[in-house]
Amino acid sequence: MSHSKGRLYVISGPSGTGKGTICGEILKDIRNEFSVSMTTREPREGEVHGREYFFVTHEEFEVNIGRNNFLEYATVFDNYYGTPKDIVLKKLEKGRNVILDIDVQGGLQVKAAMPEAVMIFLLPPSLTELRKRLENRGTETPEKIEKRLSKAVDEIKFIGEYDYMVVNENLEEAVATVRSIMTAEAARIPDKVLPIIRKYEQEQKGE
Amino acid sequence: MSHSKGRLYVISGPSGTGKGTICGEILKDIRNEFSVSMTTREPREGEVHGREYFFVTHEEFEVNIGRNNFLEYATVFDNYYGTPKDIVLKKLEKGRNVILDIDVQGGLQVKAAMPEAVMIFLLPPSLTELRKRLENRGTETPEKIEKRLSKAVDEIKFIGEYDYMVVNENLEEAVATVRSIMTAEAARIPDKVLPIIRKYEQEQKGE
Repeated sequence: MSHSKGRLYVISGPSGTGKGTICGEILKDIRNEFSVSMTTREPREGEVHGREYFFVTHEEFEVNIGRNNFLEYATVFDNYYGTPKDIVLKKLEKGRNVILDIDVQGGLQVKAAMPEAVMIFLLPPSLTELRKRLENRGTETPEKIEKRLSKAVDEIKFIGEYDYMVVNENLEEAVATVRSIMTAEAARIPDKVLPIIRKYEQEQKGE
Repeated sequence: MSHSKGRLYVISGPSGTGKGTICGEILKDIRNEFSVSMTTREPREGEVHGREYFFVTHEEFEVNIGRNNFLEYATVFDNYYGTPKDIVLKKLEKGRNVILDIDVQGGLQVKAAMPEAVMIFLLPPSLTELRKRLENRGTETPEKIEKRLSKAVDEIKFIGEYDYMVVNENLEEAVATVRSIMTAEAARIPDKVLPIIRKYEQEQKGE
């Protein structure tokens, strides 16, 4: 079945759903890797160009916007952040799966730019449970928590744009479900099936 | 997310690919069950109506054809065999997955009658391997084996009509892949997402 291409996975979900932890588990598989974003912000101590980010100037970033080379991009505090398409495509071509841990707004941009992206939405079992998890972090004021909960509900309104939903009730099960989705997607029959048919036909003729 | 419906799985593949064994493993999960066919042939000793088959008269069968109640049907040696739609739908409604172990011709009929069926194609790693497996059975003449191999290639030509392909190189892995496909399909976001959104919205308002 020769060499098969990788797939782009968009993983979104309200903060507190365990997205980071789940992505971390998924990345233990060497076929999977994170996409590295491009940014105009200054590198911090210890950050390496091409590892944490591709650090570029405003001009370079805008050249990439001009040639339509972002799957998504946004401005945060006067700095650009974006996912460069060419780099993602190169990784997929090599057979790696690229994982994009991104908010719903960014996820929808990616889907528009690359409709074949596999879209996974992580959900908390309930809002009460999400509140509990955010409170247990102990790092946020009650006001900030309310804001996060209301943002969560706003994000969930876009769930219809996604392909799969994984309710993170139990971390191990949620990770297993995401892995199953990736296994299933790798087993999906491609648009072009002639090479598959040819392989068996040629074997038959060669006999 | 309340009670979710089951799915219909069509599993096809050339004889000798291990379809029976794989289906047997899948059926160990109580959420999965085989579809029971309707037939006009006489019950054999020990066969129970509703378990092996629904045994009916020619007239009854043709009434079902008339009201379009078959996902697929065929005639074999003057007898009808078919998959009754109403019974499958009832099982799906109860949340069970229905597994149809069926040849490609039947599989395509099912897809036409129920486009939401999940279509899985089992493949042998190679024709050489398939030949070896058929020879090892020791039950068939070389002519019959040649006929099966050529039928296998004819069936594989329809692989583009299927959703997933699973190469049975290693039985355990093949079973795990089919299970992953079923897990992924259960995580698929439904067409109607409003009930999901409402659940979280109501929780927010109730607080």
